[in-house]
Amino acid sequence: MISTYNVNMRIYMECIPCILNQGIRTIRKVTDNSGKQWEITRKMIYAVNNVDVNVSPFELAIIINSIIKESVGNNDPYLKDKNDHNNKILDIYGEIEEKVNKAENRLMESIKYSICGNRIDLGIFPTIDISNVLEMCNNIILEDKYLDLFKKELNISNNILFITDNAGEIIFDKILINILKEMGKSVYLGVRKFPIINDITAEDAIGLGFNNNEIIPIGLENMEIVDNYDLIISKGQANFELYHKRNNVIFLFIVKCAILAKALNVPIYSIYFDKFGDDL
Amino acid sequence: MISTYNVNMRIYMECIPCILNQGIRTIRKVTDNSGKQWEITRKMIYAVNNVDVNVSPFELAIIINSIIKESVGNNDPYLKDKNDHNNKILDIYGEIEEKVNKAENRLMESIKYSICGNRIDLGIFPTIDISNVLEMCNNIILEDKYLDLFKKELNISNNILFITDNAGEIIFDKILINILKEMGKSVYLGVRKFPIINDITAEDAIGLGFNNNEIIPIGLENMEIVDNYDLIISKGQANFELYHKRNNVIFLFIVKCAILAKALNVPIYSIYFDKFGDDL
Repeated sequence: MISTYNVNMRIYMECIPCILNQGIRTIRKVTDNSGKQWEITRKMIYAVNNVDVNVSPFELAIIINSIIKESVGNNDPYLKDKNDHNNKILDIYGEIEEKVNKAENRLMESIKYSICGNRIDLGIFPTIDISNVLEMCNNIILEDKYLDLFKKELNISNNILFITDNAGEIIFDKILINILKEMGKSVYLGVRKFPIINDITAEDAIGLGFNNNEIIPIGLENMEIVDNYDLIISKGQANFELYHKRNNVIFLFIVKCAILAKALNVPIYSIYFDKFGDDL
Repeated sequence: MISTYNVNMRIYMECIPCILNQGIRTIRKVTDNSGKQWEITRKMIYAVNNVDVNVSPFELAIIINSIIKESVGNNDPYLKDKNDHNNKILDIYGEIEEKVNKAENRLMESIKYSICGNRIDLGIFPTIDISNVLEMCNNIILEDKYLDLFKKELNISNNILFITDNAGEIIFDKILINILKEMGKSVYLGVRKFPIINDITAEDAIGLGFNNNEIIPIGLENMEIVDNYDLIISKGQANFELYHKRNNVIFLFIVKCAILAKALNVPIYSIYFDKFGDDL
């Protein structure tokens, strides 16, 4: 990969209406009261009016989400959606696992599911059609060179932090994580320290049977925790924002924003499976 | 049409990010300077922060567009786009006119082109692909009852104000306007008093050969001018916002906003060809 990408993870102008839209979709989930909806919308606009242009999009999203959660006393507005998406993917877990086990290259096949699972993103899409996600899984093409890069990193890494993104997606990730464990790796699960949109928290992960000892809650204030691991596998665009300057991270995500797509010089909804800035 | 639609033409929460997005697209047209872009974005957010929730979406769009135009000293940021769209449709005008003339029902056929021309809306779409517009023209289906309503109104109206919307679209409108004139009607052309997005102004209309005596510039301050006409034919969603409470208006537009689509109980990108609130 060429290392001349013009990626600036400070906020772009376009991030502001995008994050306001995210906020408005969240507001509609937590209250039907029009007066309350406008009260929170006003608070969001006020916060945006005062925000520093040097924040990252994810930091602004955190601010906006905190305003909503505090205004309605609901700490996890997407809990129902998260459970719904987890259950829908759990329903087909056995089928997918079998497909991966029968594949010529199990590692490659499991990576495909892990990437397409990143489509289950309520920060971008108002609703998720799981059949579209599965269609994407069936159509993903990954070049061998990316798998070679992945294997090269695995050869020199025993202690892996797998930073998760969305509910539903995590069930697909589990297949990949199990393969990494079979390869003898220690795999820890990075999760959000607090609920934000449909991202996985420690509570969500424990509910899905992940071992408490393997779960690493990460917030903006303890991001240096990632230094403790040989290799980071990072899911999703927000985690790309947070970790793209590090050199021991392999990113797996779908580029879901026109601005980042332009900076990376790829079409929107492309998959991104790479170390950032590496020359392959 | 049932008259129980829950249409509220005050601003909805969702209008705010939508209009900010419109503004950001305009900013990117008028300056490449990142500092200047952010300076104007900050002004827009400040204005939104102070706006009354009782304004209509179109009024907020006017405020946002004025801020941009004043900040860069460019009174018509979409002039190039408007000329481009006008020229592209003028290129195929003869062909379309011939198709209308050969149609079984010329009035119906010309209305189809007038409606699908409303797709040429830079307030909603960042770019316009004219081939998609023409594909839509070929696929529009209009029920006879709507044409019957139109004819009934025409039978009792001699003095018609045709309120235009976008550049490009106006060339299709011209075919319909010529047919109305053939029917012996006096047809006047309503245009925006000032440039906003790619809407037609008096200057644009004169440049396209419309007669100065037939052009009626309308702003928020002289909207009552529409009282002087027997019938209003109103193009576009913004004009629906402005005139939906009147009873002598036939609207022709594509519903391009999820909020209005929900209020009208139609799918987004449906066509709207009706008097509002009429029971057919």
